[in-house]
Amino acid sequence: MIVVMKTDAAEGEIINVQKRVRELGFKDSLIKGVERTVIAVLGGVYPELVDEFSVMDGVDTVLRVSKPYKLASREVNPYDTVVSVGDLKIGAGKGLVVMAGPCSVDTEEYVMNTARGVRDAGAHMFRGGAFKPRTSPHSFEGHGVKGLGLLAKAKAETGLQIITEVVDPRDVEVVCETADILQIGSRNGQNFSLLKEVGRTNKPVLLKRGMWATVEEWLLAAEHVLNQGNNKVILCERGIRTFETATRFTFDINAIPLVKRLSHLPIMADPSHSTGKWYLVEPVAMAAVAAGADGLLVEVHASPDHALSDGAQSLTPANFAVLMAKLRVLGEALGRPLQPAETKAPATT
Amino acid sequence: MIVVMKTDAAEGEIINVQKRVRELGFKDSLIKGVERTVIAVLGGVYPELVDEFSVMDGVDTVLRVSKPYKLASREVNPYDTVVSVGDLKIGAGKGLVVMAGPCSVDTEEYVMNTARGVRDAGAHMFRGGAFKPRTSPHSFEGHGVKGLGLLAKAKAETGLQIITEVVDPRDVEVVCETADILQIGSRNGQNFSLLKEVGRTNKPVLLKRGMWATVEEWLLAAEHVLNQGNNKVILCERGIRTFETATRFTFDINAIPLVKRLSHLPIMADPSHSTGKWYLVEPVAMAAVAAGADGLLVEVHASPDHALSDGAQSLTPANFAVLMAKLRVLGEALGRPLQPAETKAPATT
Amino acid sequence: MIVVMKTDAAEGEIINVQKRVRELGFKDSLIKGVERTVIAVLGGVYPELVDEFSVMDGVDTVLRVSKPYKLASREVNPYDTVVSVGDLKIGAGKGLVVMAGPCSVDTEEYVMNTARGVRDAGAHMFRGGAFKPRTSPHSFEGHGVKGLGLLAKAKAETGLQIITEVVDPRDVEVVCETADILQIGSRNGQNFSLLKEVGRTNKPVLLKRGMWATVEEWLLAAEHVLNQGNNKVILCERGIRTFETATRFTFDINAIPLVKRLSHLPIMADPSHSTGKWYLVEPVAMAAVAAGADGLLVEVHASPDHALSDGAQSLTPANFAVLMAKLRVLGEALGRPLQPAETKAPATT
Amino acid sequence: MIVVMKTDAAEGEIINVQKRVRELGFKDSLIKGVERTVIAVLGGVYPELVDEFSVMDGVDTVLRVSKPYKLASREVNPYDTVVSVGDLKIGAGKGLVVMAGPCSVDTEEYVMNTARGVRDAGAHMFRGGAFKPRTSPHSFEGHGVKGLGLLAKAKAETGLQIITEVVDPRDVEVVCETADILQIGSRNGQNFSLLKEVGRTNKPVLLKRGMWATVEEWLLAAEHVLNQGNNKVILCERGIRTFETATRFTFDINAIPLVKRLSHLPIMADPSHSTGKWYLVEPVAMAAVAAGADGLLVEVHASPDHALSDGAQSLTPANFAVLMAKLRVLGEALGRPLQPAETKAPATT
Repeated sequence: MIVVMKTDAAEGEIINVQKRVRELGFKDSLIKGVERTVIAVLGGVYPELVDEFSVMDGVDTVLRVSKPYKLASREVNPYDTVVSVGDLKIGAGKGLVVMAGPCSVDTEEYVMNTARGVRDAGAHMFRGGAFKPRTSPHSFEGHGVKGLGLLAKAKAETGLQIITEVVDPRDVEVVCETADILQIGSRNGQNFSLLKEVGRTNKPVLLKRGMWATVEEWLLAAEHVLNQGNNKVILCERGIRTFETATRFTFDINAIPLVKRLSHLPIMADPSHSTGKWYLVEPVAMAAVAAGADGLLVEVHASPDHALSDGAQSLTPANFAVLMAKLRVLGEALGRPLQPAETKAPATT
Repeated sequence: MIVVMKTDAAEGEIINVQKRVRELGFKDSLIKGVERTVIAVLGGVYPELVDEFSVMDGVDTVLRVSKPYKLASREVNPYDTVVSVGDLKIGAGKGLVVMAGPCSVDTEEYVMNTARGVRDAGAHMFRGGAFKPRTSPHSFEGHGVKGLGLLAKAKAETGLQIITEVVDPRDVEVVCETADILQIGSRNGQNFSLLKEVGRTNKPVLLKRGMWATVEEWLLAAEHVLNQGNNKVILCERGIRTFETATRFTFDINAIPLVKRLSHLPIMADPSHSTGKWYLVEPVAMAAVAAGADGLLVEVHASPDHALSDGAQSLTPANFAVLMAKLRVLGEALGRPLQPAETKAPATT
Repeated sequence: MIVVMKTDAAEGEIINVQKRVRELGFKDSLIKGVERTVIAVLGGVYPELVDEFSVMDGVDTVLRVSKPYKLASREVNPYDTVVSVGDLKIGAGKGLVVMAGPCSVDTEEYVMNTARGVRDAGAHMFRGGAFKPRTSPHSFEGHGVKGLGLLAKAKAETGLQIITEVVDPRDVEVVCETADILQIGSRNGQNFSLLKEVGRTNKPVLLKRGMWATVEEWLLAAEHVLNQGNNKVILCERGIRTFETATRFTFDINAIPLVKRLSHLPIMADPSHSTGKWYLVEPVAMAAVAAGADGLLVEVHASPDHALSDGAQSLTPANFAVLMAKLRVLGEALGRPLQPAETKAPATT
Repeated sequence: MIVVMKTDAAEGEIINVQKRVRELGFKDSLIKGVERTVIAVLGGVYPELVDEFSVMDGVDTVLRVSKPYKLASREVNPYDTVVSVGDLKIGAGKGLVVMAGPCSVDTEEYVMNTARGVRDAGAHMFRGGAFKPRTSPHSFEGHGVKGLGLLAKAKAETGLQIITEVVDPRDVEVVCETADILQIGSRNGQNFSLLKEVGRTNKPVLLKRGMWATVEEWLLAAEHVLNQGNNKVILCERGIRTFETATRFTFDINAIPLVKRLSHLPIMADPSHSTGKWYLVEPVAMAAVAAGADGLLVEVHASPDHALSDGAQSLTPANFAVLMAKLRVLGEALGRPLQPAETKAPATT
């Protein structure tokens, strides 16, 4: 930590800062520059210190030198984490993984048709929301436990493993019975009670970026899960909130390679929520993979104009098949081909 | 809802939209403009319809005409809501209310000294976090239930009513035992499980704006509480996330009069989190009141450079007393004076 | 400047950084912390150095210690600058100054009626755009030189001094003939050719904040003017671009006291563009003054629903008179009353 | 245009809106919904009307139906524009074009070495700034006309055509003598005087997105150029300003396919300014191409740690050659291979 003094800081103010540093058990190193004095604070500095020192008399600003996240950082763990889900391996360039399905679990017919459709197109996992965080209380909020049953049924028939969202710490246990991956949605990106609760399970956790979260805050959210002992964390970029309103969110493509550099955790991409428009999903999915994403989370619905949520951003099974064909070519060209999908083939007649 | 067709939409595409409108039980009105055709959809339109229609062939965009929040809107309830907390009346220009205290409840000595300090300066309520949402798992996360005990003690001595944050739906019951107002923090601004849970109590709820939330989304979050039957909702602007990093957040002063126009709910302001710097708290507090805020939530700590969180933005009791003196003058000038504070006087010796 | 090395930086990489520091004529100070080494660079560091060092092997990040603006900073000039325009004194708490008038100069009748209206209500200066930057080329772009003539006529009759925008470096000379203050609009907030050109005049310059500019970048824009020898710079907060779309921009109220602390330059506020809605102008104007603004720039039009631009955010002369009455009370309460307006009284009949 | 009345609008207010519509020569169509009345306005509506009607009594909001840009829109011109520069064809999937070179033209040695390096790696054009907009007046601002001479020399030797920035309308003529493409930088993205001036030339114009500009405003900026008769406009996404500070800007990958859908103009990508870090340039460049960009503008410097600007984001010629090799593979896989580069081979010895 570096304490930058004001250009007109008094000698006594500088001494006071040094005293406080030593009082707290740290070492200090004084550097007198041309314009001003700075004091380096050495030792196991904790985040609150920045605040403490910044209010002292004569202090201009306090600069942090260490990264606030540890367990999620590559400095602590330089080797890529690989999260296994059945035979799938997510991370470390092990080959692309695609999870697809409807935003929310609605009717049995749509769910089963969508599951079959994405299975046939080569998807690796099935996604679908039973518990839905909805901006308006007047919107459809999911079928809850009954929806989990439909997901289990889709898994039984297609062999696709299940990723589904959990929104309440009290539901973690029941969701774990059906889910192969627990999804934490963007709106819960700093719901620390929930993050801790999923951190106490041994299920893989897909952690979407809060739409307001810096990459640093996102890695700190992952740290909340890791800190409970669950190291199976998969990050997922899903778009951030910006001034641009022509798309639902702004997909932060820079974040993909940046996270790869700062952290050892796998990172996936959600081109559906980040764009909000089905016709932007394919190009943004391709871009995310070209930038280094380990996989994709894509909304597909058997009948988007009858979806109870997010119809505008859902691909039809036919459009999803086109995307998968293009991903196959792209993955080969990049040396990161699609992983084999271990699904149950449709019954032949 | 207005469905705007593309300039080159085919006749059949227009007819299909009309068919779907009628199939869903709504009426339609076709308007042929110079450039394109638009179709007005009449009836109790629900939010999902926008998505449904926007993916239909030939549709350019779908414009919403109705506001998505109802219970929070002035169109449904034109009269200002007044939330009573003991003798205090919040809202409807009933006079300013100031809630002050430390970010987090730390030591008994600091808590009691701060409580006495803000009481002496004329504060109406005491704030302090027992349960703290912290960005890093390595930061101090509050004393929990033990912290609630310290708040109760502060109330017993000073007579100041208590506002404190709840972060987990499982804690709502225990927090209700001590809190006179339940605070929902910015990071839980779209934690719908929590919003519903506090909506099932009969305690006043102070709902901070999510740092990413539009005013519309914030009113929808309030709608989640109102929809459960609890109509004692107080909104609190606390700064939004923008590109400006010289301050912790950007206080959205426009939101104060805008919310007053759109909603009947009281609105308060938090000049501490929205600035992140103690020396900006007074001018922004004054501004919020001049813009029409019904009250303030201010961080005060007996010794900011020893605070376990948010020291940089905390006022000392002395600075807080200066702020209160200025608010007294400002409130008088604006015709919205500080309400009388019903606190227990310090014991005379 | 502080060069922060990676935790695993090699000894040779550290030595290379030191060598480069000395090669460039600076001194270095090496500090070995628990986690990593940092190297302080001492001497007249220039901004490009941050970039140069950040690409060196073994370097994690480079932190800037000095502020990049000098002439605009309070560290270089601790005393408040006062800009005089005729008898008016802007800055240093000299009393509020209000500049009002239409967004663009349209018809003679409207211009003269508006000028008379704002004069009667107590405004100090008349604003109006002859050259207008318009987002669309299909919008009205102002009357140019002819518009300047109308402003001169309004001045002749009312005695109100004139502030008007200049958008092209080639127009600076002609605009100087009529303008008492040159206005630089938000879209030209980093048009450095234009900033230099107005810096070469001896006219006061009102510099609106770029809607994308941090406070630091805004002060650097001022530095471009100051650096040419013109020290009569008045800053004007006019709202920044954020994700909130319910208002045209987000007025950054924090910026008012922050600029006062960082810079000696006067700062005014534009509550019209920053809100985009006439009914928000009064509360935001009051807030800006309560936060410490030295004055206001307000759009007023004799007939807002016939304005050729920005009608939605223009006050009528009647509403403006109400605002002035409230400012009179507020200014008195704050100890910064409205300055006397040196205008020509209407001819009595 | 749709005028949405308040739910409690009086009959007289509705009639007044209709009257005004007819007074202005438009037709109106009244639709009475369940909650409120809306009035469609038919005819050649201009942008100012939105403002005019939004201030009328009883009006809640006014919704725009038409797009404000015409010449840039696919509705007016459905066929992809191809901009030719010598033998290069930019747009319409004609194959990738890469423009590379230093941020600013500094020493002759660096310029020539960089030009040779990017030529050898297969670049199609040479970029370099002679006139530089710099945030600080204390930064290097380019060599001006002398810099143009160095660019001409680089062209003479390598055969690479030149793209360079123009920042002042008074410089357009001189820059045209050397430039094969005129570049408009982000900070001048709404400098309408400059946009008009380049619109009066017959040179291709590469128009970078203003860092604050919505896609709609960006297309309107293009409209300013097109409106002067110059239809050789190439758009270039270069990152927008968001709350994320870990990267210099946020590359808006969504904008690439969105612009392709809304406009017929070619679109390129600048992965250097949008990331600010050289190690993010390659993945973001790959992503932009995968998303559909017609080409890239990349910063390359023979010695990034001695660059006078933007060293941190510049590739070395060696890293650039790696990028070109990867683009070759990616372009083939996507069916949009790199165009042949018509450059002069280095003299053999």
